[in-house]
Amino acid sequence: MEPRNENWKARCEAGFFTQDVMGTLGVSIAELVPGRIVLEMPFNAAFTQHHGFLHAGTVTTVLDSACGFAAFTLMPEDREVLTVEFKSNFLSPAKGSVFRFEGEVVKSGRTLSVTRGTAFADGVAISTMQATMMAVAL
Amino acid sequence: MEPRNENWKARCEAGFFTQDVMGTLGVSIAELVPGRIVLEMPFNAAFTQHHGFLHAGTVTTVLDSACGFAAFTLMPEDREVLTVEFKSNFLSPAKGSVFRFEGEVVKSGRTLSVTRGTAFADGVAISTMQATMMAVAL
Amino acid sequence: MEPRNENWKARCEAGFFTQDVMGTLGVSIAELVPGRIVLEMPFNAAFTQHHGFLHAGTVTTVLDSACGFAAFTLMPEDREVLTVEFKSNFLSPAKGSVFRFEGEVVKSGRTLSVTRGTAFADGVAISTMQATMMAVAL
Amino acid sequence: MEPRNENWKARCEAGFFTQDVMGTLGVSIAELVPGRIVLEMPFNAAFTQHHGFLHAGTVTTVLDSACGFAAFTLMPEDREVLTVEFKSNFLSPAKGSVFRFEGEVVKSGRTLSVTRGTAFADGVAISTMQATMMAVAL
Repeated sequence: MEPRNENWKARCEAGFFTQDVMGTLGVSIAELVPGRIVLEMPFNAAFTQHHGFLHAGTVTTVLDSACGFAAFTLMPEDREVLTVEFKSNFLSPAKGSVFRFEGEVVKSGRTLSVTRGTAFADGVAISTMQATMMAVAL
Repeated sequence: MEPRNENWKARCEAGFFTQDVMGTLGVSIAELVPGRIVLEMPFNAAFTQHHGFLHAGTVTTVLDSACGFAAFTLMPEDREVLTVEFKSNFLSPAKGSVFRFEGEVVKSGRTLSVTRGTAFADGVAISTMQATMMAVAL
Repeated sequence: MEPRNENWKARCEAGFFTQDVMGTLGVSIAELVPGRIVLEMPFNAAFTQHHGFLHAGTVTTVLDSACGFAAFTLMPEDREVLTVEFKSNFLSPAKGSVFRFEGEVVKSGRTLSVTRGTAFADGVAISTMQATMMAVAL
Repeated sequence: MEPRNENWKARCEAGFFTQDVMGTLGVSIAELVPGRIVLEMPFNAAFTQHHGFLHAGTVTTVLDSACGFAAFTLMPEDREVLTVEFKSNFLSPAKGSVFRFEGEVVKSGRTLSVTRGTAFADGVAISTMQATMMAVAL
C-alpha cells in the first residue's frame, strides 16, 4: 500500500505517544509499514478481569489503536483518524505474558477505511477485530 | 426480567470487584436490577487518546463489563459469563468529567445472552454497544 | 427528529420502490415518520433456510433497508444513503406469517448516521441490527 | 482443519440445497474443503438496490451461508449450525456479472465457531463479514 505523505512514519510514531492510554498500558510499536502496524504489551495485572486474564476491553483498546494507526499510515498530511465503529470476537482467554496486536488496512478510502486486527497472547490468537476508521481534517 | 437465583445481587457486586481493571479505572456501580446495571467512572487522563478524551477502548472496557454484568444478573448459581463478541459505534467525543455506562439484557437464553450498552459523557450519548455473552459452568 | 428537506416523505416512498429487491420480497411501508420507518413482509418460502424459516440474510436485507431509509428521512435534498456496515444478532427463529421491521436513527450526523433496527415474526423479536449509514452526494 | 465426521462433504452438499433461498438466488458451490467453502452466484436484477447493484442484504445472505457452511464442514455428525450474529463492512459497489463468496473458519470451538467471509464482484472485494456460528443438536 502507498503512503500519501512522505512523513507518514514519523507522524505515526509521534501520534502514537500522544495517546496517554498507550503509555499507561505499556504498549510499544514492534513493526510499522504502510498499511500495517504491530504493537506489543506485557501482561499487567491492573487491567485484568475476574480470572486474572487481560480484560476483553483492554485487548480491544490496543487492537483499536492498532487498527487506527494502520489506517493513519495511509492518510494525507492534513488528516487524522477517528474510530467510527469496531466489532471484536474473542477466541481464547487473554492469558499470557506478552501480547501482540496486529492491525492492517483492508481498504483505504478517501473518507472511510476498513481495517482488521488480531491479538495474540504468547503466540495464540485471542481476539479478532473488524473496524471502520474515518479521515477527518486536522 | 426474572433472576434465576436469590443471591443474584450479592453475586454481582462481589463479582464486579474481582475485575481488577474496574478498580484501576475507578468504576463504581450506580444501579443494579435484574437484567440491567449502570456503572459510573470519573474522567482519568491516564486513559485518554490523542485529543485528551477517553480512548474508545476505555469506554468499551466499561461498556463490556456493563453488558456482561447485566447478563450475569440473570444467570443461575452455577454459571458465570464470558464475552463472545461485541460491536460498538462511537457517536460523539468521550469528553466530560463523569461517564455513565448502561448495560441491559435484550434476550437471556440458556447458553447465549444478547445485551445492549450505551455510554454517556456528562449526559451526552457517546457510544452504543451490541454484545453477545455466554453462560459457562463455574 | 427534524427532516432537512420538505419533500422527505415523497422522496423516501419513491426511493423505496427503486430497490427492486423490496418488490421481489413483497415488502411494504407500514409507517414512515422522520427518523423512523416500519416495513412489513409476508412469509415467502422462496427465501427460507434449511428449517423452512426465513433465512437470516433475508431478514437482514429488509432490516438494512429499514435502517437505510430511516437515515434517509433526515437527509438534505442533495444526498442519498449508502450502507457502511451493519451488525445483526439473531434472537429467535424467523418463524411466522407476518414479519415487521423497525428502523430508527440513533444519531444523524453530517456524513455518518448510526441506526438501529429490530425484526419481529408475528410479534416476536427475531433479530436486532446496529448499522452505520453514509450520506453521499447524488 | 480436521473434519469430525467422514461424511462431512456429502452432508454439506445435501444441506446446502435444503436452503431454498440458495436456489432462488441461483447460488452454486464452487469449492468445498474442510473449514472453507466458496459459493458463486450470477447477477440477478430481482435482488438489486436503487442503483441496480446487488443489495447489501443479498450479498450478506450468501456470505452468511458461506460462513455457516464453512463452520458446518467441521461439525460432528449430530450437530447442525445456526447463525448467532454477523457483522459486514461494505467495501465497493456490488456491481458485476459474477459474484464469488468465500467463507472460512477462524476458530472451530465445541459450541461456537468464529468465521470470516469475503464477497467479490468480478474479482473485486465488495464486502467482508465476521460471523459467529453455534453448533446445536440435530
